Amino acid sequence: MDEQLVQKVLEQVMKKVGAASSAAASSVPAGSSPVTEQVAGRGLTSLPTEFVGTAIGDTIGLVIANVDPLLHEKMGLDSRYRSIGILGGRTGAGPQIMAADEAVKATNTEVVAVELPRDTKGGAGHGSLIIFGAEEVSDARRAVEVALQELERTFGDVYANDAGHLEFQYTARASHALEKAFGAPLGKAFGLIVGAPAAIGVVCCDTAVKAAEVQVIGYASPAKGTSFTNEAILFISGDSGAVRQALIAAREVGIALLSTLGDKPQSLTRPYI
Amino acid sequence: MDEQLVQKVLEQVMKKVGAASSAAASSVPAGSSPVTEQVAGRGLTSLPTEFVGTAIGDTIGLVIANVDPLLHEKMGLDSRYRSIGILGGRTGAGPQIMAADEAVKATNTEVVAVELPRDTKGGAGHGSLIIFGAEEVSDARRAVEVALQELERTFGDVYANDAGHLEFQYTARASHALEKAFGAPLGKAFGLIVGAPAAIGVVCCDTAVKAAEVQVIGYASPAKGTSFTNEAILFISGDSGAVRQALIAAREVGIALLSTLGDKPQSLTRPYI
Amino acid sequence: MDEQLVQKVLEQVMKKVGAASSAAASSVPAGSSPVTEQVAGRGLTSLPTEFVGTAIGDTIGLVIANVDPLLHEKMGLDSRYRSIGILGGRTGAGPQIMAADEAVKATNTEVVAVELPRDTKGGAGHGSLIIFGAEEVSDARRAVEVALQELERTFGDVYANDAGHLEFQYTARASHALEKAFGAPLGKAFGLIVGAPAAIGVVCCDTAVKAAEVQVIGYASPAKGTSFTNEAILFISGDSGAVRQALIAAREVGIALLSTLGDKPQSLTRPYI
Repeated sequence: MDEQLVQKVLEQVMKKVGAASSAAASSVPAGSSPVTEQVAGRGLTSLPTEFVGTAIGDTIGLVIANVDPLLHEKMGLDSRYRSIGILGGRTGAGPQIMAADEAVKATNTEVVAVELPRDTKGGAGHGSLIIFGAEEVSDARRAVEVALQELERTFGDVYANDAGHLEFQYTARASHALEKAFGAPLGKAFGLIVGAPAAIGVVCCDTAVKAAEVQVIGYASPAKGTSFTNEAILFISGDSGAVRQALIAAREVGIALLSTLGDKPQSLTRPYI
Repeated sequence: MDEQLVQKVLEQVMKKVGAASSAAASSVPAGSSPVTEQVAGRGLTSLPTEFVGTAIGDTIGLVIANVDPLLHEKMGLDSRYRSIGILGGRTGAGPQIMAADEAVKATNTEVVAVELPRDTKGGAGHGSLIIFGAEEVSDARRAVEVALQELERTFGDVYANDAGHLEFQYTARASHALEKAFGAPLGKAFGLIVGAPAAIGVVCCDTAVKAAEVQVIGYASPAKGTSFTNEAILFISGDSGAVRQALIAAREVGIALLSTLGDKPQSLTRPYI
Repeated sequence: MDEQLVQKVLEQVMKKVGAASSAAASSVPAGSSPVTEQVAGRGLTSLPTEFVGTAIGDTIGLVIANVDPLLHEKMGLDSRYRSIGILGGRTGAGPQIMAADEAVKATNTEVVAVELPRDTKGGAGHGSLIIFGAEEVSDARRAVEVALQELERTFGDVYANDAGHLEFQYTARASHALEKAFGAPLGKAFGLIVGAPAAIGVVCCDTAVKAAEVQVIGYASPAKGTSFTNEAILFISGDSGAVRQALIAAREVGIALLSTLGDKPQSLTRPYI
């Protein structure tokens, strides 16, 4: 990995330095966001029929019309569903799960699996593998499409710098993806608070529950409820206004604390809470 | 992360270079393979007697002639073996396990432990720690030497880009390392399919079992059967031709899908399947 | 890691660009240590009252005077303690635990939780989340302050290069943090040996127990006793001189072996053993 990176940087730098162009220095590109949406199908003549699209966080959306029975059994999938939609990324579990929640609201699908690798490409958090079950492949595809479209928004309150990250998620009405992944009560407002390194997360969680009267659905930390990530995480439910208030208070404290370990953490897209 | 780093380095370098030299451009080094074999013993006057060699994937081969009884017990090693060979790397478990399988075929040793850390230096997969047991230290050393030599080949169908990796392994006749690590039937053809991020791996696995009539020995994913890696993995067995056919079909689809998240993934050495 | 990489790339690039602009070349900054102490509060107008300080390893120290009862319960904290001190980092568990041990010796606090994420920002080891319980917030704060101050020292026998790391820790008298984290006998000399990749760690552990008569308290490896890190770890106790002798022998072998996979590993601060 590092060797590749060194090579990549070298190539870019040498390209810039080029033929003694002193203008080179002034042509350094403006900072691009740390995770940028991937453009699919660059120069490929044909893509497998399973391909749906890509999005921020090295997220890919796929669909299998008819999962092979041998694999279907090994994966432990519900036998009702032969068609599956697949949404998975290297960076982020919360954004993908929130996006999947919107997808199940909008389509005739069910979230049948949520698996959380330890990932984020050297960062402190999770990646994700989410599987939608559907009776019709068109439903599975539609669910994946909706989820991919939502990701730009659900990465909005993810803030990162070199030392860690913060994540805040809000929905006025939790659906089946949030119920499956986090035990969120259906139809109620739901909030998610994540802070990494975990020490910062603990203070964010405490700030949230002190800021408004919310129900605490769950708490996760490196040794319990995570895949050994360096995060402290809180799942809250309750009155819509209270949940938002808790999130906003936690966000303010989290950004101030994470700033003490590096640059001021920036939203990966645009905040929505 | 990497994007930020590239940007950071670029900025620093451009600041230093300023109005640079035209000679520089022509001295860009030819692309080196992302993981290159390490040269051992650079400038060291003496190496511990335990040292055997190094190879691709930050892999090191070591031997202990007579493991201290206190440690032997704590490691839970089989009491028959006082001598052990040790093969471990930062990047790759599959390549090292395949190499160990050739080593046990060629020597009077047994694979007594296969442990899979979550590693690959910020990548999506595993590292490895493999221990050979032997009655004679010369056997342990020989096993490690054989395995180190095999790694150049067994990394051949590992393909990586910045977003993830794919791995395909094949042997016409599985031996005891593959039996221990994956439950592979002894003496039969064996195939391994790995895709990361896991979403891509799921489609690779499905493609493989649809492409040929093979037995599915096992399936692993971020939450089950891996050390929380962002991989979906399939272990297959069966007729030699069928196993190869399944691997080749999965490889084609995997490369096309992983290309949608970045550059076309390249073999780390030279494909052998 | 990233700092090392930036430095490495810079050096390579400057070598290439070099000759032309000699002024540029001479202005390359001297190598800074791979993990440098973070300066807190850069330009922030106000920090949350919970903030105590930061230190090497992206470590942050925090305090909560009165943990919210809802969170307190979910975190499973001892009901005696309403005030907690929090010490957590991205890189390093051993250094923070050793530092916490000095902190509990010096203050009226208890270590109520030690959680070990899989981290080190793409490296092979752990991060940390350590929680001190106290009846008075001033005690919790003091414990965190002491621990932060100790870190410069406890990172002294951590050695790293691009391929892995080594860690050695020693105390003449183990206290409650080491008892809780590693089962160290109270009041006795204690030593910690860590090698990554794990293959190197195994040889370090074997070297240590052969070098002096020590008690082996525990052994941890990727599949057992770690959070799937690529490390082999040994916990030893016994006579003060013997423990030091074991550590010094393991350190010598470890540095020689890790050097075969990259540059000679350097202390992150200054060796103390």
